[in-house]
Amino acid sequence: MSRIRVHNLNTSLDGFSAGRTVTFDEPIGGASALFAAFDGRVIEGVHNTDEPVTADRAFYSLWGQGIGAEIMGRRKFGPQTGPWTDDEWVGWWGDAPPFRTPVVVMTHHERPPIHFDNGTSFHFVGGSPAEVLGVARDLAGDDDIRLGGGPSTVRQFLADDLVDFMHLVVSPIVLGGGVSIWDGNADLQDRFTVESVTTGSGLTHQFWNRLA
Amino acid sequence: MSRIRVHNLNTSLDGFSAGRTVTFDEPIGGASALFAAFDGRVIEGVHNTDEPVTADRAFYSLWGQGIGAEIMGRRKFGPQTGPWTDDEWVGWWGDAPPFRTPVVVMTHHERPPIHFDNGTSFHFVGGSPAEVLGVARDLAGDDDIRLGGGPSTVRQFLADDLVDFMHLVVSPIVLGGGVSIWDGNADLQDRFTVESVTTGSGLTHQFWNRLA
Repeated sequence: MSRIRVHNLNTSLDGFSAGRTVTFDEPIGGASALFAAFDGRVIEGVHNTDEPVTADRAFYSLWGQGIGAEIMGRRKFGPQTGPWTDDEWVGWWGDAPPFRTPVVVMTHHERPPIHFDNGTSFHFVGGSPAEVLGVARDLAGDDDIRLGGGPSTVRQFLADDLVDFMHLVVSPIVLGGGVSIWDGNADLQDRFTVESVTTGSGLTHQFWNRLA
Repeated sequence: MSRIRVHNLNTSLDGFSAGRTVTFDEPIGGASALFAAFDGRVIEGVHNTDEPVTADRAFYSLWGQGIGAEIMGRRKFGPQTGPWTDDEWVGWWGDAPPFRTPVVVMTHHERPPIHFDNGTSFHFVGGSPAEVLGVARDLAGDDDIRLGGGPSTVRQFLADDLVDFMHLVVSPIVLGGGVSIWDGNADLQDRFTVESVTTGSGLTHQFWNRLA
């Protein structure tokens, strides 16, 4: 059975994983400090940069391993709300999005799929987390599914007990406000084993694996 | 410039990475306790097992990222010494060796290359570490080269300053004797940065990156 996995989810010490308002200028909603240490070049392998191979980069590189599809919230795809009025918007990532698999964008507003030459495609799907997951499973085949965020989306899937694995990166910063995956998920630790590892950069990486 | 990388090199607290004598029955020379925690299923990705995604498995999965060729000592390929008398021996790994790239076996005794359907091929090459590395670079193209061991081979390449990266796994065991990568490599730390991370299993993972 394929797993549903969360990777490289950054959180502050006060529990926030994004700012409150996503705009074109601030895709993380003003919480970009969370990503200060994140090296996005290595999500598909530590060989994609000449920088030193560190524990942080090793953990980031789990992102693409055995993934057949991603699920993301509409807010990760773009800052718009309501019905689509601008079909020119095809995400933040230009003409070669890094996903290289089908991506299911959660939205109640229909829109035709978008296909890119590098294997990435965006599919706009409404429904509950379980219903969206069913669509993603069909697209992923036997491979795992990455739950790509943002934090509101991860929070919903955690509440519905649909997450098998989560790589959480606790950054030693205080944001003071924003979006949290923990709201409504008290006692989440009862459903998972949690391993914590602190690296030379001061980040704490946590590996949450759902109990069998 | 591609890098030459060592991965998943296990060592005991007293500095040994293999036993002294490799036989058909004991490929690690009686030091198999070093590999007790090693999960070889994940060398090409943590999705290759249903076991929990741990920090140990994350680090092991660096093994194949961006690798175009491996270099190994003759002892890793088989327990024989001297001229090849048995061309039936094609390594320890059966008909689908895990490498999936060209592999250069260091030996002064010539033998025709061996090719497998899964992309693995063995090439038997004599000469100094630098000379063998030249052959491996040609085979690897723009990709990195994995220095696959055993420890005697790694020791030689370290002494000749040919290693760019080394992932060392320090296991909390005492072997009492064997083969060490440290012999003749005093003050090795002066040529590298070293990050140490301890995981929930009790292993310490070290990331040695050569100073630029």
